[in-house]
Amino acid sequence: AGDVEAGKSKSAKCVSCHGVNGKVSIPTYPNLAGQNEVYLDVSMHAYKKGERTGGLATVMSAYVNNLSDQDIADLAAYYASLGEKE
Amino acid sequence: AGDVEAGKSKSAKCVSCHGVNGKVSIPTYPNLAGQNEVYLDVSMHAYKKGERTGGLATVMSAYVNNLSDQDIADLAAYYASLGEKE
Repeated sequence: AGDVEAGKSKSAKCVSCHGVNGKVSIPTYPNLAGQNEVYLDVSMHAYKKGERTGGLATVMSAYVNNLSDQDIADLAAYYASLGEKE
Repeated sequence: AGDVEAGKSKSAKCVSCHGVNGKVSIPTYPNLAGQNEVYLDVSMHAYKKGERTGGLATVMSAYVNNLSDQDIADLAAYYASLGEKE
């Protein structure tokens, strides 16, 4: 399972597009705060596997290609946890 | 631009997976409430164009294939608007 604190420490590269705390000001990017953990995990793997193309998928693929399954699980746990505080 | 009320009236088919008010109880599905309007629009078009595959993309494609650009814009406006009330 993903670790929230580990995910937070791994999220530095995500911030430029997805915002501090997973809330974005750029409307073309998705908010991540409070999104379902399993969906976040599945989506990152989808980008890694090349199952999402078009738009900014190339960018996301570049970011997730270097992530391990554990990294992805940790990031999913972290961003899902942000919604609990709202 | 999308019309919130029109989107609401068109969202009946979305509810079974994405929940009433865009908040889901099934963790494999994404919450939509408060997601960015442009991102929602882009994502529905991505499913329609077949740019997303794997997982439940086949299901989403089936749902959006019959939607017009206006339908998609209305649904995006509706689900984005739900976040404003939180």
